[in-house]
Amino acid sequence: MNNTAMNISYPASRKIYVKGTLHDISVGMRQISLLDTISVENGVEKREKNAPVTVYDTSGPYSDPDIAVDVRQGLPRLREPWIERRGDAERLPAFSSAGCRSRLADPSLAAIRFPVVNLPRRAAKGKSITQMYYARQGIITPEMEYAAIRENQQCDALGIPSHITPELVRSEVAAGRAIIPAGINHPEAEPMVIGASFLVKINTNIGSSALSSGVEEEVEKAIWSCKWGGDTLMDLSTGSNIHEAREWIIRSSPVPVGTVPIYQALESVGGEVAKLSWEGYRDILVEQCEQGVDYFTIHAGLLRAHLPLAQKRTTGIVSRGGAILAGWMAQRKEENFLYTHFEDICEILKQYDVAVSLGDGLRPGSIGDANDAAQLAELSVLGELTQVAWKRCVQVLIEGPGHVPLHKVKANVDEQVRLCHGAPFYTLGPLTTDIAPGYDHITSAIGAAQIARYGTAMICYVTPKEHLGLPNKEDVRAGVVAYKIAAHAADLAKEYPGAQVRDNALSKARFDFRWRDQFNLSLDPERALEYYKAGRLNDESDHCTMCGPHFCAMKLAKEACEINN
Amino acid sequence: MNNTAMNISYPASRKIYVKGTLHDISVGMRQISLLDTISVENGVEKREKNAPVTVYDTSGPYSDPDIAVDVRQGLPRLREPWIERRGDAERLPAFSSAGCRSRLADPSLAAIRFPVVNLPRRAAKGKSITQMYYARQGIITPEMEYAAIRENQQCDALGIPSHITPELVRSEVAAGRAIIPAGINHPEAEPMVIGASFLVKINTNIGSSALSSGVEEEVEKAIWSCKWGGDTLMDLSTGSNIHEAREWIIRSSPVPVGTVPIYQALESVGGEVAKLSWEGYRDILVEQCEQGVDYFTIHAGLLRAHLPLAQKRTTGIVSRGGAILAGWMAQRKEENFLYTHFEDICEILKQYDVAVSLGDGLRPGSIGDANDAAQLAELSVLGELTQVAWKRCVQVLIEGPGHVPLHKVKANVDEQVRLCHGAPFYTLGPLTTDIAPGYDHITSAIGAAQIARYGTAMICYVTPKEHLGLPNKEDVRAGVVAYKIAAHAADLAKEYPGAQVRDNALSKARFDFRWRDQFNLSLDPERALEYYKAGRLNDESDHCTMCGPHFCAMKLAKEACEINN
Repeated sequence: MNNTAMNISYPASRKIYVKGTLHDISVGMRQISLLDTISVENGVEKREKNAPVTVYDTSGPYSDPDIAVDVRQGLPRLREPWIERRGDAERLPAFSSAGCRSRLADPSLAAIRFPVVNLPRRAAKGKSITQMYYARQGIITPEMEYAAIRENQQCDALGIPSHITPELVRSEVAAGRAIIPAGINHPEAEPMVIGASFLVKINTNIGSSALSSGVEEEVEKAIWSCKWGGDTLMDLSTGSNIHEAREWIIRSSPVPVGTVPIYQALESVGGEVAKLSWEGYRDILVEQCEQGVDYFTIHAGLLRAHLPLAQKRTTGIVSRGGAILAGWMAQRKEENFLYTHFEDICEILKQYDVAVSLGDGLRPGSIGDANDAAQLAELSVLGELTQVAWKRCVQVLIEGPGHVPLHKVKANVDEQVRLCHGAPFYTLGPLTTDIAPGYDHITSAIGAAQIARYGTAMICYVTPKEHLGLPNKEDVRAGVVAYKIAAHAADLAKEYPGAQVRDNALSKARFDFRWRDQFNLSLDPERALEYYKAGRLNDESDHCTMCGPHFCAMKLAKEACEINN
Repeated sequence: MNNTAMNISYPASRKIYVKGTLHDISVGMRQISLLDTISVENGVEKREKNAPVTVYDTSGPYSDPDIAVDVRQGLPRLREPWIERRGDAERLPAFSSAGCRSRLADPSLAAIRFPVVNLPRRAAKGKSITQMYYARQGIITPEMEYAAIRENQQCDALGIPSHITPELVRSEVAAGRAIIPAGINHPEAEPMVIGASFLVKINTNIGSSALSSGVEEEVEKAIWSCKWGGDTLMDLSTGSNIHEAREWIIRSSPVPVGTVPIYQALESVGGEVAKLSWEGYRDILVEQCEQGVDYFTIHAGLLRAHLPLAQKRTTGIVSRGGAILAGWMAQRKEENFLYTHFEDICEILKQYDVAVSLGDGLRPGSIGDANDAAQLAELSVLGELTQVAWKRCVQVLIEGPGHVPLHKVKANVDEQVRLCHGAPFYTLGPLTTDIAPGYDHITSAIGAAQIARYGTAMICYVTPKEHLGLPNKEDVRAGVVAYKIAAHAADLAKEYPGAQVRDNALSKARFDFRWRDQFNLSLDPERALEYYKAGRLNDESDHCTMCGPHFCAMKLAKEACEINN
């Protein structure tokens, strides 16, 4: 890791912290300051202040100029005192998994290993430590208050009526309708909530494959995702050194991190599907729980009985995890071991408060396969597993498609809510057509906005490289921004309290020809400024090259209004 | 114009022509040939043919290798014999407008003037020549059959049940629910139909402003738009030499061309809004009708009474035409002359079969202004004007927003249908949030897919440069492809006959690892191939860099299915 000092900056922005009232917490936000509106009335210049706009901030300490983050040390361990104060978890004297111990003992890995070792925590004997458990006890944890303040950041200060309170977060988590992915071994992550009652969240997938990028590039992508607004990260690395790559990513990540443990399991048996076993998988689960993963995608709902349904499809099985387990079941002629061991899995997860994201191994991979019998059969099993997890207070997400035409999008949410008892839905897109490889961030942002509007809690981004190759840094940016757009479009459509504040401020800036404010308020100020500059011949006039000086509608309309008064 | 020989090619594609059965017409389409599916069963290689896929083709003669198009000569005049055969239009001995005559007489314009002069046609005395007139007489014109064959290109050959017939086109045009923009002085354009019963169409805006590009670049953008699938073109040029630029664009365009005549009117009075007059505007209408414009945006529904409503808005008036007319009304203290002269306008348009696209001068320019009183007040006037035009058999489009949050999109279509008697709706986006300048092709593709799904007939593209500057060629490509995606997503959602054929073929190619077919079937084969190549280390293996060799879901799933059998 060459570039050890990382920071993130946004134009005209400062980091502010809002204090909790129930707990001693400080919630970071970004405040964008604005220029005055200047108008001329009867020949006299009039100035009007524009209040700064506060926006949800996923960039963590990277955007605080008072915190020097050294990625070789990792982020500050924000939640450690909260966890200690609860006194229901114990620090282990060593890592429990054989996998982790052997990696730590291997001197050949010294060069790529994260420099600091943090011993793991686990629930003390007989204790329940999940956010869902606390919520059901009626306890509002610091995590819940922290998440609530973030969700509500615009409203209290602006006098906008809002029902978003710490108690709402607690009650939604208690009911299973929302989760706070906050593994106790990832205390660096800032708590956030995923549920239909809250702002729509977006997930970024990163991770190297055997053919591509290294650890440094993946860490850069992770921080880059947080800069552009990614709410969670999934590390989908395959290839060798998964363990070390994940350690770097988790220690650097101010947002929750998810993984798909079956990928590492397959690497550990040399890619031979039939050799996968519950025992091997179990060790990997423990390894990752103790590293600090916040949620696992587990394809426990794909059963042997579903395989004939998938064979009739246009594109069969397109989920990697689903395909691995289908291969295992076909070769071993046994039921999916993630299904048969699901209670054991939950027993592990609850000790670290790692959430389960029930994978949709049979998500449709084409318009032709959308909402088919295979997809719905698996979804129904996910509903059954949801209740198994909830019985142990393990937090649950349900994964969804995939490829779905617009008119079949709403049915996905409705069926998911019905079959999965209201557990939050987390979808990949969906892509609304198959015919645009190279532009699938757009085909899927169309579907994602729609599915989020109807209640999907988190949408997993798709980059322009989907179906074609691994995304690079610019693809990550394109994917994250497209999904911030989709999520925000859904928040507006849901009339989420305060969601429109930023739109209103940006549009007012536009109407006032406060160009800098327009850029600074946008999701990607750098790109907006770059495009603006590309078209300009002279810099400070109040029109752009779209219309030129005579044809600027807003300029003309203002003149008209002045005369009309 | 340096590069006079223009052509368009698509990989693995050939131009085919489908003959009419009612008329002697040949309708151009693009046929994409596919590789065989190769599988191995019990050690024996099995080959299965894949039928070629025929797609709607907007590239006109440019993609026919048998036609050498010289842009200095213009495109072949396809519809000229059809028009002559009807015998209800006369060729004029000279151009009727003073504007056109003075441009042709000006020797200083020789260098930029289109080299060929085609004398204009106009309805013979007492004759009605609009497609709507013919349709109401029960006549199926060659234009109607041509459009119907294009709409139906997939179905008959594939045995897919389809209700899309020449008679349907006729009856929809007769009822005003669809239009065929086919000015008699643009016989180069291939007929196409715009209406909710047909494939969703997309419009591309091009045109220079005083600060930017020249004629050659605009012609290139026009042909480029046709290459990527733009169904119509609007030339929004401002600045000097509008007349000559338009002539080049029309003579080069195989798709209908629209304009906003008030722009030229404003140029003709030196940008001084108060000097605009009906007489000056009238001459420009005639000039453009005789050049071959196919449809005019006319902001005749914006009334003086609406101005106070616009003053209450976040972003006032953002339509250039609307702002010009608002300025005129405010300064002159008179009613909009496009409204008071609307019958006169229709009398001109009907003589050339130029359609009117009733402009929404009060379209919302921000989320805060969506579906407000100003917008709806104007829409109601557009409904009144629709009936005025229809009385004269002038074809009508209704323009719509703009900026609209997702939950207010459907109401726009419903109100438009109700107030405008089912005339086809033509919207700009809408953008579903204001906060992403630099990405407004995406913010608006989300809204466009949605509004088209509910019945909007044509969606006007938005490029990444919207709000920031004039689009360059790459921006045109990004905008057109984003809108082809939105339109196709809507066609799928409407279950348009045959719409899913291309998705199915592409997904089958994907599942078969026929990479070339996947690219060739996509909306932008060049981009897909470029991204694929960017990630590849070795070329011909059956996986991509996304997953690498061990983790390819489709490969694994196929193996699983083989074993499971």
